[in-house]
Amino acid sequence: MGSDINAVFRAEQMDPAKIIVELCEEFYNSGWMPATAGGMSIREGASIYISPSGVQKERMRPEDITIFDINTNQFVGESTFKPSASAPLFRAIHSIRGANACIHTHSESSVLATMLFGNTFEISNIENMKAIPKCDGSGNYGAFETLRIPIIKNKPHEEDLEYSLVEALHKYPEAPAILVRRHGVFTWGSNVWKAKVIHEALDYLFVLSVKMRKLGV
Amino acid sequence: MGSDINAVFRAEQMDPAKIIVELCEEFYNSGWMPATAGGMSIREGASIYISPSGVQKERMRPEDITIFDINTNQFVGESTFKPSASAPLFRAIHSIRGANACIHTHSESSVLATMLFGNTFEISNIENMKAIPKCDGSGNYGAFETLRIPIIKNKPHEEDLEYSLVEALHKYPEAPAILVRRHGVFTWGSNVWKAKVIHEALDYLFVLSVKMRKLGV
Amino acid sequence: MGSDINAVFRAEQMDPAKIIVELCEEFYNSGWMPATAGGMSIREGASIYISPSGVQKERMRPEDITIFDINTNQFVGESTFKPSASAPLFRAIHSIRGANACIHTHSESSVLATMLFGNTFEISNIENMKAIPKCDGSGNYGAFETLRIPIIKNKPHEEDLEYSLVEALHKYPEAPAILVRRHGVFTWGSNVWKAKVIHEALDYLFVLSVKMRKLGV
Amino acid sequence: MGSDINAVFRAEQMDPAKIIVELCEEFYNSGWMPATAGGMSIREGASIYISPSGVQKERMRPEDITIFDINTNQFVGESTFKPSASAPLFRAIHSIRGANACIHTHSESSVLATMLFGNTFEISNIENMKAIPKCDGSGNYGAFETLRIPIIKNKPHEEDLEYSLVEALHKYPEAPAILVRRHGVFTWGSNVWKAKVIHEALDYLFVLSVKMRKLGV
Repeated sequence: MGSDINAVFRAEQMDPAKIIVELCEEFYNSGWMPATAGGMSIREGASIYISPSGVQKERMRPEDITIFDINTNQFVGESTFKPSASAPLFRAIHSIRGANACIHTHSESSVLATMLFGNTFEISNIENMKAIPKCDGSGNYGAFETLRIPIIKNKPHEEDLEYSLVEALHKYPEAPAILVRRHGVFTWGSNVWKAKVIHEALDYLFVLSVKMRKLGV
Repeated sequence: MGSDINAVFRAEQMDPAKIIVELCEEFYNSGWMPATAGGMSIREGASIYISPSGVQKERMRPEDITIFDINTNQFVGESTFKPSASAPLFRAIHSIRGANACIHTHSESSVLATMLFGNTFEISNIENMKAIPKCDGSGNYGAFETLRIPIIKNKPHEEDLEYSLVEALHKYPEAPAILVRRHGVFTWGSNVWKAKVIHEALDYLFVLSVKMRKLGV
Repeated sequence: MGSDINAVFRAEQMDPAKIIVELCEEFYNSGWMPATAGGMSIREGASIYISPSGVQKERMRPEDITIFDINTNQFVGESTFKPSASAPLFRAIHSIRGANACIHTHSESSVLATMLFGNTFEISNIENMKAIPKCDGSGNYGAFETLRIPIIKNKPHEEDLEYSLVEALHKYPEAPAILVRRHGVFTWGSNVWKAKVIHEALDYLFVLSVKMRKLGV
Repeated sequence: MGSDINAVFRAEQMDPAKIIVELCEEFYNSGWMPATAGGMSIREGASIYISPSGVQKERMRPEDITIFDINTNQFVGESTFKPSASAPLFRAIHSIRGANACIHTHSESSVLATMLFGNTFEISNIENMKAIPKCDGSGNYGAFETLRIPIIKNKPHEEDLEYSLVEALHKYPEAPAILVRRHGVFTWGSNVWKAKVIHEALDYLFVLSVKMRKLGV
């Protein structure tokens, strides 16, 4: 699946900052980034492009995107905004999972799903699981396997999630995402389009699991 | 968060009447202002711009917006429409909360939320609460605090809500909004973009609280 | 409220056929006219413009709209399509209610609402009821009144609904709409914009009544 | 209904590849093809145009569409993508049902509907059933008839569904669609617009059946 997605998005050679602006507006319209919530990052070379903190995700401009330089370990670039409070979490994910793109949203269904499960969200036997790769490199999930996503505790300050997020990434090497209780979801991909596809597939599963609970099935 | 939002909405120097037209159409499309319901106001200097009464919120034009002059205590301007029936409530909110923008909608989830609670809507332990400022000036809500919104009784005539709305504003100095039972929600902000963000964050919480009730969590 | 809505829709002097095309596409996008379902009519002078039968409501053109001439009691005009199977029902509503526009949709919530009630859908104590006029000329509903909409039995052939629809119009002179069990809703207005507003207000009430039932309130 | 729909879509003489691109984007926006899920095919003469595998359905281009030649039994054309894993299923449906268009989606309601029924999804007494033709040539469903759709077991590999799908097509000659348990729905039509209408009508019925179950009606 991977190279196909890449190939479909060809041509444009878009600037990562422009992609972040475009996708955040799309995610706002999907209800996943309401009220300034959420954020995303794209790594290109030694630069990590990160959406700014506390701004309306539907009204950003490319020059608002903050840029973190991996070599100097500092924010560079000319954005007048603070980087997303998720920045340290995005950097950890880029590093530990080798991801080149991270997406964090407060999707309603992700939040509700964390209320229905204990330490891990679990689902199995749904065709759409096939769109999601296991992060241990063993291929995508089969429809009859079980997908497990760790649910970590929320903290008063987003930065303070780093320790437990990193711990969960190590403890669940296969997991394609981390849920934060009553907060939202972090996911990622080897490129931004894969990250987008994985977020869509996960949200679809969160929606189904919430509706299945209501139906008692 | 505040100044960031301001900054994101730069440049345009839009006329308050144009902003009201644009946002009401957006709120109509979100299902928050169906069938002529709802309204909003923006204060600029001694003028309060107020959406007109009983018109389709998706089909207004800037010249339809009514203008109230604080100095003369009269409606001025050339709109051929009556001001919103919420006008006295908006004026009270501008005055008591020091708000420069008010939004009133009949969002389904706000109405349903009023059916699930007694005198105050309450929610806690949801990350998205952080987007909402406490109106006593003590900063935004933390994710682990409790957000309380007074629910006042509906009245046959919207103007007659003024007394109980004012009373609730004084009784709950922290409250970022007032719910009206089986009617809708009033919220506000120090500028129109903050008011929009706060309405989005509140509606997200109303949706969650309704779904949590259905799920029994 | 009435003249205001008229006034908001000024200028354009649109052809009724163009309005029908535009609004049916909008209603399709709202999910109210899926899969060729539903239809609408506008009376102008001795002509009743009626959407065609069994066509995709999102892909019509003005020349597809059928025209019924009240003087000759015949369809005139150049549409190559059959008129909506609702045509006799629309004509009855134009005649009995004096309406100049009728809207018929299969909105999901209207269908579900008919499953929750016996001979009449009833709701009270919801602010948005104020957008809906009583058809006996006694003004709009107050928020604390009770809105009653007769639910008639569905029939195998839509034309065969005429007798019971006419009966219900006479038996419930106040009623602003007729529901058809497990089928949908017919509503109308003194002009097309009022009919649109009334359909929106009713659908909002149907949605609320379904959700209230799920919540047990 | 049939020829009307054809007639509404006149003029454009669109290339099947362009129609597939346009409709897949529309189905993505409806939530029916999230995260690269689903696909569709159109038969024109000896060519079957089939959407590619594993690509974002909202970002395809006409040149990405794969083309299967019925005469040579081979894929021809210049797409750099693999054909949809549903290709053998689409070809079986084209052949057995004489359909000229097939649509396969993972719509949430289709998946949930398969969880509520045993070997066949059943619904009756809903007006919108009239939009759906029986595949034995005996006309469209009446509102008071019963619509039955077989539900086949899901398999780890989509291609392996062919045997049970073909079996179900033969066993239920009237059935306008095949559901796959916890996977999605396959439907079709004598042209692509009819297939689209039928999918919309079916999804509406799936949504209703899920909501009826929640309401206990």
